[in-house]
Amino acid sequence: MVVDLAPEPAVADLAERTARFVRDVVLPVEERHRDPVPSEAVRRELQDAARKAGVFAPHVSTGYGGHGLDMRGRAAVFEEAGYALLGPLALNIAAPDEGNMHLLEAVASGPQKERYLRPLAAGEIRSCFAMTEPAPGAGSDPSALATRAERVDGGWRINGRKWFITGGDGAAVTICMARTSGSPGDAGGATMFLVDADNPGMKTVRHIETLDQSLFGGHVELLFEDCEVPDDAVLGQVDAGFRNAQVRLGPARMTHCMRWLGIARHANDIAIRRANERELFGSRLGELGMVQQMIADNEIDIAASRGLILRACWELDQGRSAAQATSIGKTFCAEAVWRVVDRSLQICGALGVSGDVPLSRFLREVRPFRIYDGPSETHRWAIARRAIRQHAAAAR
Amino acid sequence: MVVDLAPEPAVADLAERTARFVRDVVLPVEERHRDPVPSEAVRRELQDAARKAGVFAPHVSTGYGGHGLDMRGRAAVFEEAGYALLGPLALNIAAPDEGNMHLLEAVASGPQKERYLRPLAAGEIRSCFAMTEPAPGAGSDPSALATRAERVDGGWRINGRKWFITGGDGAAVTICMARTSGSPGDAGGATMFLVDADNPGMKTVRHIETLDQSLFGGHVELLFEDCEVPDDAVLGQVDAGFRNAQVRLGPARMTHCMRWLGIARHANDIAIRRANERELFGSRLGELGMVQQMIADNEIDIAASRGLILRACWELDQGRSAAQATSIGKTFCAEAVWRVVDRSLQICGALGVSGDVPLSRFLREVRPFRIYDGPSETHRWAIARRAIRQHAAAAR
Amino acid sequence: MVVDLAPEPAVADLAERTARFVRDVVLPVEERHRDPVPSEAVRRELQDAARKAGVFAPHVSTGYGGHGLDMRGRAAVFEEAGYALLGPLALNIAAPDEGNMHLLEAVASGPQKERYLRPLAAGEIRSCFAMTEPAPGAGSDPSALATRAERVDGGWRINGRKWFITGGDGAAVTICMARTSGSPGDAGGATMFLVDADNPGMKTVRHIETLDQSLFGGHVELLFEDCEVPDDAVLGQVDAGFRNAQVRLGPARMTHCMRWLGIARHANDIAIRRANERELFGSRLGELGMVQQMIADNEIDIAASRGLILRACWELDQGRSAAQATSIGKTFCAEAVWRVVDRSLQICGALGVSGDVPLSRFLREVRPFRIYDGPSETHRWAIARRAIRQHAAAAR
Amino acid sequence: MVVDLAPEPAVADLAERTARFVRDVVLPVEERHRDPVPSEAVRRELQDAARKAGVFAPHVSTGYGGHGLDMRGRAAVFEEAGYALLGPLALNIAAPDEGNMHLLEAVASGPQKERYLRPLAAGEIRSCFAMTEPAPGAGSDPSALATRAERVDGGWRINGRKWFITGGDGAAVTICMARTSGSPGDAGGATMFLVDADNPGMKTVRHIETLDQSLFGGHVELLFEDCEVPDDAVLGQVDAGFRNAQVRLGPARMTHCMRWLGIARHANDIAIRRANERELFGSRLGELGMVQQMIADNEIDIAASRGLILRACWELDQGRSAAQATSIGKTFCAEAVWRVVDRSLQICGALGVSGDVPLSRFLREVRPFRIYDGPSETHRWAIARRAIRQHAAAAR
Repeated sequence: MVVDLAPEPAVADLAERTARFVRDVVLPVEERHRDPVPSEAVRRELQDAARKAGVFAPHVSTGYGGHGLDMRGRAAVFEEAGYALLGPLALNIAAPDEGNMHLLEAVASGPQKERYLRPLAAGEIRSCFAMTEPAPGAGSDPSALATRAERVDGGWRINGRKWFITGGDGAAVTICMARTSGSPGDAGGATMFLVDADNPGMKTVRHIETLDQSLFGGHVELLFEDCEVPDDAVLGQVDAGFRNAQVRLGPARMTHCMRWLGIARHANDIAIRRANERELFGSRLGELGMVQQMIADNEIDIAASRGLILRACWELDQGRSAAQATSIGKTFCAEAVWRVVDRSLQICGALGVSGDVPLSRFLREVRPFRIYDGPSETHRWAIARRAIRQHAAAAR
Repeated sequence: MVVDLAPEPAVADLAERTARFVRDVVLPVEERHRDPVPSEAVRRELQDAARKAGVFAPHVSTGYGGHGLDMRGRAAVFEEAGYALLGPLALNIAAPDEGNMHLLEAVASGPQKERYLRPLAAGEIRSCFAMTEPAPGAGSDPSALATRAERVDGGWRINGRKWFITGGDGAAVTICMARTSGSPGDAGGATMFLVDADNPGMKTVRHIETLDQSLFGGHVELLFEDCEVPDDAVLGQVDAGFRNAQVRLGPARMTHCMRWLGIARHANDIAIRRANERELFGSRLGELGMVQQMIADNEIDIAASRGLILRACWELDQGRSAAQATSIGKTFCAEAVWRVVDRSLQICGALGVSGDVPLSRFLREVRPFRIYDGPSETHRWAIARRAIRQHAAAAR
Repeated sequence: MVVDLAPEPAVADLAERTARFVRDVVLPVEERHRDPVPSEAVRRELQDAARKAGVFAPHVSTGYGGHGLDMRGRAAVFEEAGYALLGPLALNIAAPDEGNMHLLEAVASGPQKERYLRPLAAGEIRSCFAMTEPAPGAGSDPSALATRAERVDGGWRINGRKWFITGGDGAAVTICMARTSGSPGDAGGATMFLVDADNPGMKTVRHIETLDQSLFGGHVELLFEDCEVPDDAVLGQVDAGFRNAQVRLGPARMTHCMRWLGIARHANDIAIRRANERELFGSRLGELGMVQQMIADNEIDIAASRGLILRACWELDQGRSAAQATSIGKTFCAEAVWRVVDRSLQICGALGVSGDVPLSRFLREVRPFRIYDGPSETHRWAIARRAIRQHAAAAR
Repeated sequence: MVVDLAPEPAVADLAERTARFVRDVVLPVEERHRDPVPSEAVRRELQDAARKAGVFAPHVSTGYGGHGLDMRGRAAVFEEAGYALLGPLALNIAAPDEGNMHLLEAVASGPQKERYLRPLAAGEIRSCFAMTEPAPGAGSDPSALATRAERVDGGWRINGRKWFITGGDGAAVTICMARTSGSPGDAGGATMFLVDADNPGMKTVRHIETLDQSLFGGHVELLFEDCEVPDDAVLGQVDAGFRNAQVRLGPARMTHCMRWLGIARHANDIAIRRANERELFGSRLGELGMVQQMIADNEIDIAASRGLILRACWELDQGRSAAQATSIGKTFCAEAVWRVVDRSLQICGALGVSGDVPLSRFLREVRPFRIYDGPSETHRWAIARRAIRQHAAAAR
């Protein structure tokens, strides 16, 4: 046992093959398709290619056809996949499916795994996770959960409204958080339900137009009106929803960071290429101090993000809650990625805001990450509270 | 003569009527039309309404049907107009027409004024200003100007390529900067030419897709191929193009600041309204310290921008070049407006990145302002050089 | 009435003479005396010189021997005086005397003016203002005021403890805020008392060692133990202390900004001189982009500070409370001055942290200004609350 | 081989014992001695205590009486030692001795090790490293080295001037960098010489007064005037000085980061304690959002610094140059530590700038770290250049 930062050879190899696959297969597809959201056909084509390249589903356990990477391994591979906007989709590690698979492996029953996890892991179906609600419901404060599930004969009846449900369009299954005891403001009493797409009590009200565009299946608003589900639709245990949500949320924050870190690197590479080529005032752009400063700050932000992600992943792999480490990592990384893309765009000038390079698309895609998975402000509040509590405990 | 910051009564009255007009007439139109760019019919409808409200063309001299505001007066009125994305279009003070009218009033010949300024001031035609070129041509460094105009019998023949020409689609006249002496890298020898839209030597190559969307007439790429214009198409004097460009650029930077400052105020108002309404963790959002900090920083940025704009306008109205003041004002204001919109969006959370409020549209619209009218880096370079030169001169 | 930013000729002249006086008389004294706090003899020597140069006491009304400048006039002159650490002392406009004179002119009785204001204005005596108390007393939250004054026969008896009382050592008179009704937490019921230095009930407990060093008379801790004062020691009216404190605090914030803005300019000048002289990697420092960026940001911060100061001064001169404008101006300016000094020091490298240039002294002097006169956080809280209230009022 | 971030048990144990030693032994001494620089007697007392506690000289190999920690081990232990200003002195790991021991272990000859390294490792003597020169000599740009050494019979004659030589007062040996070939501006041709304190050709010109005060032996200016040294005073090889300097500089940057990270944690702990105790506006300080934000940002900065330090240390332990990783780590960490101390001071308000807590001392101590060991600007320049070169190489 000694401090070591190098991934195991098998992981390093998978990461490298992923990098090559993204460069040789995914990026050309991405450049050909100007439409930010690819068609279902493109999704299948990319996933087939990933399967052939042996880089598909790196996070799923081998029993379900994956590579069984732990969080540290994901850190190495997902960053490479994230270099292209469509990379995660190709590897079947895009949000929210990736987090849902992680959750299902951890808490689903055997039959639930066969019914949902296996086809998800194979890319045959897609899924979504319905937690966020319009104000004054569950958002930054999960305890405000307003959607309710009442006991009915042989099952439950769900009523409530959810929005910003990523991937909701086309999802074969929705994991819906609903209150089964207590009332809004209580931190307890939530349960997760697996709701099939054809359930007549669940309706897609609308697609929410958002600044970001690339997440497959969009962001939808869902209405649950007397939506009845059987008992075996309960995922995990009744009233264990908040606790089980943590199983998903901590790792999912980190995998988001990994993927977006790939985009940050991509943005930085575009800027550096430009800095190498473009002449201004008789110098190459890359010889101008203010441009160098932006590139250096990109490098620093990327390196610091990577260090924080690895720390949180290592803690998660030790079986710890890693709440402080994932909050710190998510907050820093979401802001760092944003800064990197913003600086890279600035370095490219007018070209940067044009469609001739993907930087303004990247800018749009990463901005919401400072809000979803917990806004920076909510995480900072939690980070400070934990630090203060820990200090007070140490003082006693 | 005493230091006074209050606008004259007539200006204050016009500003107030503009604010009411924007609130009562423009914003409802804007909310109705989801398409970021309004149709020509909407443009005419809004301009008719502005005429009726007595707020049309505040910047043009009275001889051409305007209110004849100086720069300080524009600072008060344009900020109010800028509160809505369509406000400047309604008042006929949108870029680039507004800057072009300013330029024409200052340097055009009598016949040129009748032919171009009068219909522009009336909103009957539109115009564009073709200076920026693809690398390695004129961008941050105007002296890299590569488009050339050669003497031909009775006129000039222009060859070159321009891009990011705002408002180019539908412009009746293009003011084209071309080199009439010297070579790329020389700071001298440019001339402005008035090129009519039907000139067969000028072609619109493409619309450039950009992060921002709201500027009427888009951003186009223009190709000048043996584009011949007569002698009386010269605007100002031959070889005086760079000097005359300054007549346009300093004030145009400031009017951009004024308009975007209106958007910043609008964004801040949306955030404050949200902070007043939304409850989180048992408090109104506006009672949470981190939200208060963002609102306070918005207020500070808006106030500081206004002070710098007023300083530059006052200097311009004294007939000074105001180069340092406009560089300082533009740099600070472009970044401040961006920060204000970004913070406002953050305060609104998921709602902020949705189409349910216009904040993500504002974010897209204001980002390029840190690049056009001189990137922040170019202005900082110029600001520092002037400060160093001035210091060296004082030391002698 | 028209927007004008140029000071009146008489003010401009006084500012210019102040600048010359500081350069020719004060700075040489400052460089000679390495001790951060000058002796009383130096104070008198400098004030005599200022009197001879016709620049003494610019803020006091002519009836008391001053120039009678309003706040806008002070903005022009104090910034010049503040260019040297000892400049304000020389002109008799250093804190806290300057604010105390302002207060006495506004609220003292005729006899109080003769007894205290006249010798203060002449530089014959010094004064201090005793408001701040150790936790949990009055600090950022004035309503926590714990020092009490009880009615006794023919006067009042004061008990309490004050600290960080600037200028306390050697002050002939102390203006002491004490609670005459209500209890800590109430926003009402404070009274100001004029306490002579020889009052046996007032003791200097200690000099508080602080990061800053230059304020004449230090920062002391005062103990009031059954300190009895006669009825005519009440400054203003009984229970009007908080209201009258505003008479002092708003303007005093701004004059602090003016003076420290002078130091910021001085720091920037040192950095620019260095950037002009020093060669690095074959370039003058001033040709390196990152140095240019720091100089440009200094110029921007200085210009923005000046604009915000002028706005607040103009409002104060209109007789308005200017609470929002002084909060905004103070917050921005205190942070901007800090940034300017920090960047200037960075530009000078190792030299910057050495005693060979005064930059590290400046750094120490300006840091506490982000805390005294209201910490940035308290002002931001107040700014946001006012913005939110104003918005809610407008919405009704 | 697997990614692991936990230090080995022996290292973890040493780190924990160091933390206890600092808390129980060093901090009480530090609080007793108000003088920023302890006496030689205090130094010896602290080092004796460290020896007894078994925490002395953790970085030196066991053959010289140390614990033989590699860079990763130092990261864990030095941070704990750095929690107190005097902690590194107590453990004999203060700059510049610690870096000099590292250098001597790597490049000194056997006899040189016996003569210099052994007594240094035992704390019997002290040393300094004389590289930096006044402008236009070696500073941010080492190749500007102006001090020269000429061949004389049986040795070398050194002439030149050095300044900011930390620890120079009382150092038994000075490692002096001098040019043995080439001329200022050349990147080659430097040699290191071991100069004994009693060499009559080396004079201490003055103590340089600096913002920081705690480094034992101060910062001195040294004059070499026909300073003759024998051949065996050459450390490493002739003309290998720049290369050997890298052996010292990379690790020394990181050990500085580790120590100052300890101070940052200490500052943050003071702020958190204050936030736990102090009430303001009816809340504990730690419940106010803006205070929470500052604490959270402290936690983030500390965690990110730690991650970057570990990365660089791991690379150094692999035998790599780690130039990019140490530049990134040093730049981020120096700025992060500064921000943490500054925020902590701000949280404490007036108390923070007083001598009642050590925060303003910490502020003074850490500010120069943004300049020494390479200013942030120089590192950013180097980081960007490496990134650009690497990108260009990959593109080929």
